[in-house]
Amino acid sequence: MNFTILKEDGAARTGLIETENGTIHTPAFMPVGTNATVKALGPDELKEAGAEIILSNTYHLYLRPGHGLIKNLGGLHGFMGWNRPILTDSGGFQVYSLARLRRINDEGVEFQSHIDGSAHFMTPELAIEIQACLGSDIFMAFDECPPWPATREEVLRAVKRTTLWALRCREKKENMPHSGKSALFGIIQGGSYEDLRRESLEGLLQLDFEGYAVGGVSVGEPKEDMWKTMSLMGPLLPAAKPRYLMGIGDLKDCMEAVRAGFDMFDCVMPTRNARNGTLFTSAGRISIKRTEFKEDPSPLDAFCGCYTCRNFSKGYLRHLFLSKEILSMRLNTIHNIHFYLEFFRKMRESITEGRFSEFRRKWETVEW
Amino acid sequence: MNFTILKEDGAARTGLIETENGTIHTPAFMPVGTNATVKALGPDELKEAGAEIILSNTYHLYLRPGHGLIKNLGGLHGFMGWNRPILTDSGGFQVYSLARLRRINDEGVEFQSHIDGSAHFMTPELAIEIQACLGSDIFMAFDECPPWPATREEVLRAVKRTTLWALRCREKKENMPHSGKSALFGIIQGGSYEDLRRESLEGLLQLDFEGYAVGGVSVGEPKEDMWKTMSLMGPLLPAAKPRYLMGIGDLKDCMEAVRAGFDMFDCVMPTRNARNGTLFTSAGRISIKRTEFKEDPSPLDAFCGCYTCRNFSKGYLRHLFLSKEILSMRLNTIHNIHFYLEFFRKMRESITEGRFSEFRRKWETVEW
Repeated sequence: MNFTILKEDGAARTGLIETENGTIHTPAFMPVGTNATVKALGPDELKEAGAEIILSNTYHLYLRPGHGLIKNLGGLHGFMGWNRPILTDSGGFQVYSLARLRRINDEGVEFQSHIDGSAHFMTPELAIEIQACLGSDIFMAFDECPPWPATREEVLRAVKRTTLWALRCREKKENMPHSGKSALFGIIQGGSYEDLRRESLEGLLQLDFEGYAVGGVSVGEPKEDMWKTMSLMGPLLPAAKPRYLMGIGDLKDCMEAVRAGFDMFDCVMPTRNARNGTLFTSAGRISIKRTEFKEDPSPLDAFCGCYTCRNFSKGYLRHLFLSKEILSMRLNTIHNIHFYLEFFRKMRESITEGRFSEFRRKWETVEW
Repeated sequence: MNFTILKEDGAARTGLIETENGTIHTPAFMPVGTNATVKALGPDELKEAGAEIILSNTYHLYLRPGHGLIKNLGGLHGFMGWNRPILTDSGGFQVYSLARLRRINDEGVEFQSHIDGSAHFMTPELAIEIQACLGSDIFMAFDECPPWPATREEVLRAVKRTTLWALRCREKKENMPHSGKSALFGIIQGGSYEDLRRESLEGLLQLDFEGYAVGGVSVGEPKEDMWKTMSLMGPLLPAAKPRYLMGIGDLKDCMEAVRAGFDMFDCVMPTRNARNGTLFTSAGRISIKRTEFKEDPSPLDAFCGCYTCRNFSKGYLRHLFLSKEILSMRLNTIHNIHFYLEFFRKMRESITEGRFSEFRRKWETVEW
């Protein structure tokens, strides 16, 4: 993996991440494809929307259908028919947020599947092994993501364990065949404790990861805490490597994070909202079920060039949503993903042209 | 509307139905788009699968979102973004099979909506008015479809009422503006009573419809009765007009009906089965959830050129189905619709080349 910075505008920057499966323009938004599909979309539609990379979930794919099966069916790229880059999370966040009956020690985490209650033991080594079977382009190190709120002591323990596990991930990956074709990113924990965030970063810097992610944000803490963490960490992360703010997808938060120097984002916000009938437009967020759209012949967004906006009226989309039609989820998701990727494209353009603050001023008053 | 017979092979024939919105090759299969969408598919995918006409449901669209709204949003073609021919049923079958608390008299049918229980009164005139608002290319006359089993007396009464209503439909349509742009088909009732079928046909022939449909089949009667009705009616229907066997979609039944001279078919079988994980292939019907497909790298059907078969393995489709992913319903529906339309295309080809009996022999042993 190569990372090149193309242009800077303040702390914001545009760049290129080059992987074996293609190039990603940063700042980049990664649609989330939990179960080896970005919900409601096929790979053709993701490409048409301009997606250059997607994120998939190690925890989910490990449980079902299993990483061995995916490996045998061509790795995740072949399995789901997506030939562009894939980043896989490590499963750390899901183990703590979805699974039951967790017991954590320095070796790993014992948990029960949220699907069938079966018992599993996840270790840093296993997390890497799974991601290698999936064949992703960017692996994430296995971390401990403490809940919010957590005491300083609990967060400190998670930070120390995350550093320990990061080392084990690094070693495991280096000892695997073809390890050089994919990258490994470290994840910084530390909650809302500034000194612990710094301590976590210190520990990871020594391991010289190909990229650095800030985890444990947007886990329930006040928005101000999240913004503080983002502003603190942006400038501290190595400038020559991609900086990834995990799980953040509110477009205003993304703009602030880009301003702080972040390059990569992922979130279920555009896809989940689409299925609930909440759509993003250049005039703000709208709920398609509202009566005012009943006979509205106009598209969701007159400035949008997506398949949905080119072909269908708000009146039709409202009808599909109220009729609980499958096509509703697909057309809404096509629009939201297109809108997000187009927003990021325009944000990159504004940085390239040295007018990122103008871009921010334009969009920060919109109600999303 | 023009109908031209191109080639005959026994009683089977190929032909062209020309409408304002395009040409339909017969024998034709019409995918069902109940709520102004063929479930899980967009108009682009229907075209790619080769659909030349779809059927939509007057009863459903009248109740939601309402024919006035659809008229204001460009008619059904504009509303759903489908610029090829549309046939709308009259709502007769749905009033009897879906609605509650029906009271029938010669004037019309009083019923309660299956969506919200609201009271409605459907008449032949209203059925035509709704279809005119929808702007369909082929209207169906409003009929009374008796349940099965029904006494001879009940069926006789339904036949007489259907004839009476057919006349009122004809008159209503002739008195509407732009009435000439669309066609009106009559529907023959009579259940499993041969003499009543003949009587129903007699009554309708005098009204000189642009096409004739056989209704009230596949309503619960034994398959032998249905085949008997089909074999009886095929040769009796006017040869120079399209013959439509309503609601029949089992591929073997379709072949037998084509052999009896029928030209048009509609059925939810390919779409509904797709959503339930039942898929049609040249080797027969398969259930995608079966364990044997777990790590199967092959497509559903090696002879199929659809998007699903070109890009995805049975193993992936099984995973999507078990994970209840929306993409599962879309990919399965794409395949089944493509398979059906391709089957009909090959059937037409065999008639053109005078080898329809060979075609039937080839497919009649397959387990669908």
